Amino acid sequence: MPRLVMKFGGTSVADLERIHNVAHKVQHEVDTGYQVVVVVSAMSGKTNELVGWVGEAAAGPDANAPGFYDAREYDAVVASGEQVTSGLLAIVLQEMGVQARSWLGWQVPVKTTSAHGAARILDIPSENLDAKFDEGMQVAVVAGFQGLSEEGRITTLGRGGSDTTAVAFAAALDAERCDIYTDVDGIYTTDPRITQKARKLHKIAYEEMLELASLGAKVLQTRSVELAMRYKVRLQVLSSFSDEPGTLVCDEEEIMEQNAVAGVAYVRDEAKMTLISVADRPGIAAAIFGPLAEAGVNVDMIIQNISEEGRTDMTFSCPVEQVPLARKAVEEAKAQGEINYHALESDTEVAKVSIVGIGMRSHAGIAQKMFKALSDDGINIKVITTSEIKVSVLVDRKYMELAVQSLHDAFELDKAS
Amino acid sequence: MPRLVMKFGGTSVADLERIHNVAHKVQHEVDTGYQVVVVVSAMSGKTNELVGWVGEAAAGPDANAPGFYDAREYDAVVASGEQVTSGLLAIVLQEMGVQARSWLGWQVPVKTTSAHGAARILDIPSENLDAKFDEGMQVAVVAGFQGLSEEGRITTLGRGGSDTTAVAFAAALDAERCDIYTDVDGIYTTDPRITQKARKLHKIAYEEMLELASLGAKVLQTRSVELAMRYKVRLQVLSSFSDEPGTLVCDEEEIMEQNAVAGVAYVRDEAKMTLISVADRPGIAAAIFGPLAEAGVNVDMIIQNISEEGRTDMTFSCPVEQVPLARKAVEEAKAQGEINYHALESDTEVAKVSIVGIGMRSHAGIAQKMFKALSDDGINIKVITTSEIKVSVLVDRKYMELAVQSLHDAFELDKAS
Repeated sequence: MPRLVMKFGGTSVADLERIHNVAHKVQHEVDTGYQVVVVVSAMSGKTNELVGWVGEAAAGPDANAPGFYDAREYDAVVASGEQVTSGLLAIVLQEMGVQARSWLGWQVPVKTTSAHGAARILDIPSENLDAKFDEGMQVAVVAGFQGLSEEGRITTLGRGGSDTTAVAFAAALDAERCDIYTDVDGIYTTDPRITQKARKLHKIAYEEMLELASLGAKVLQTRSVELAMRYKVRLQVLSSFSDEPGTLVCDEEEIMEQNAVAGVAYVRDEAKMTLISVADRPGIAAAIFGPLAEAGVNVDMIIQNISEEGRTDMTFSCPVEQVPLARKAVEEAKAQGEINYHALESDTEVAKVSIVGIGMRSHAGIAQKMFKALSDDGINIKVITTSEIKVSVLVDRKYMELAVQSLHDAFELDKAS
Repeated sequence: MPRLVMKFGGTSVADLERIHNVAHKVQHEVDTGYQVVVVVSAMSGKTNELVGWVGEAAAGPDANAPGFYDAREYDAVVASGEQVTSGLLAIVLQEMGVQARSWLGWQVPVKTTSAHGAARILDIPSENLDAKFDEGMQVAVVAGFQGLSEEGRITTLGRGGSDTTAVAFAAALDAERCDIYTDVDGIYTTDPRITQKARKLHKIAYEEMLELASLGAKVLQTRSVELAMRYKVRLQVLSSFSDEPGTLVCDEEEIMEQNAVAGVAYVRDEAKMTLISVADRPGIAAAIFGPLAEAGVNVDMIIQNISEEGRTDMTFSCPVEQVPLARKAVEEAKAQGEINYHALESDTEVAKVSIVGIGMRSHAGIAQKMFKALSDDGINIKVITTSEIKVSVLVDRKYMELAVQSLHDAFELDKAS
């Protein structure tokens, strides 16, 4: 029988009514003929409650104390949230006549590293689940976000862990698809709040999704998309509150025809910093960006101008809130004589707008078309970077919405390919 | 190093402040030189919340449906409560500088039968705990009430399960003592609400505790006392809200001198039922009490009068609320011709008062002294039963408090032996 993995986040299982709703969706897939693995998160709010208790426990009687805690105990406490949901959903499914049972991380087992709170999945042996499916189990309700270390302790996977659990199960069980149910109904050509012309995509390639995720489309965690790409797991994003099909994230070969550009992404609060007249020498980039990395600054774009008379300008972008951090790091490097420049300028009123599409590889003139569209609308481009499937520009923040609309129109993203 | 088991119930770990209080008690025992196993219940209210959710899950969308659920899933959900407390207490202890870690039922493992919701402990292999104690662990915080079935599922032990867990660990680890912390500070000679002269006992024998527990002193579950008696585990009952020593439940040999009577117990809402003029024949008792047992009536005392001319009166006692059930069972047996009697009388205004003490075995005249004390206070005895270490009587309910006070005075229980 074909297998399907379904994943439901905290808001989808927030109370018993919603858990019943989830159960109906699962039952539908069973009726369609799938053996189903359902990965569930904790009921929304529960994880925060548990994390809060851990904080109180760690703080000791003095609530202002720094609050040390053992990550292994944190994991034992926090993993209980998913345990509860998996048992409850199994009961609801059984009540509907579906052969279901709950599986905790240690029961499967989901083998992970021992990096508690941020463990990585090493292996999911499928023997136990296979045996139960052979005995007639129709649905395995898996507690997401958790696993078992080699030492026999409960681990949790950290941010986005339940999505990652779902993709890993889909890979391990050779599932036909991994459906990620969330509170949006799919991936759009751009943010529908910026233009009503935004259109839901039927399909999108892994690489495009990765670029869109890192550019601010927060539907899927980067980590789970990377895992899906590596194991060629077909990933569908869809809403738990409707019956509409969602967006399939898949290998580009499965996308027969498509627009050169899949979507327009943006990051609103960017800053541009420029070191004016840097003494140019081999290793200068490392001398600048080493201290920035050490200070924890998330440098995004980097542009070095052509050198003239041994001096150059070096520009980079980072999130607005990191500008003071970046300034401190650069000025300290100068004070220590590691770098030399005339002035450090910062522009905190910029935004990043990007077009993403694997079709760019085979379509010439995409960047040119982008620049012209922006120019036609009177938008000045301050910085440009390109990759194989992406072109990003910095523009004044006040033009950001206009730029997104302009590019969405120019590439006719409102029309399906 | 000597070992100690400490057990804290739900009200003792109801919030983080109380968990800190528990941690201080544990730290004190570590400082005294013990390797400690702490058995914890769920934070009070949590188990009810989880059980409520299971009910909602099982009821389905129609809240009036009967509500079937899989006990294996019930256990997976409900066991999460103790999991949370054990992790939190471990964190608090670590924060105090104590080497502690949490242990879930499946990690120890606590091997149980597969009777989910009412599992019995089969074995607690001590290898894993021993190894960690050898590595320097000072405290094992064990999630009470839970275990692991042979099939690898989480089980729960049912009512009184955490007390039973604690006693089983004390037996498995050869602990010096098992301290059961609760909201009372020990076992009293009788209910202090009935007479201010009630005195806390320093020691009480297992057999006496069993009689008192089944007679209504609800401090310890019968099951855990039986287990303690079988494995000679010294059990101390004490309050988590004071620093006073409690009552030690131990082998009678450890109790050097003592009163013939240890305590006076009572059961308020009893009923007395009498079948008048039963046709006496071999097997008549079975013919009467078989149907009562099948109907689920908890028959306590049974008295058969001397037979005259082939007929006798048969009297028994049961809880007041079961009188209709008992009447129905007896009348049906008559209708089917299995028994024959002239009338079925019931007296629902009686109470049971008992004196308990292993000293009765060696002291003559204890029962006689009891009957005289009651008679002197004008209390009529309606039924008497005796065992080796107990004498129970039924009296009119309005005399119950007087009877308890009278017996407490007659046997001078306010004075230590």
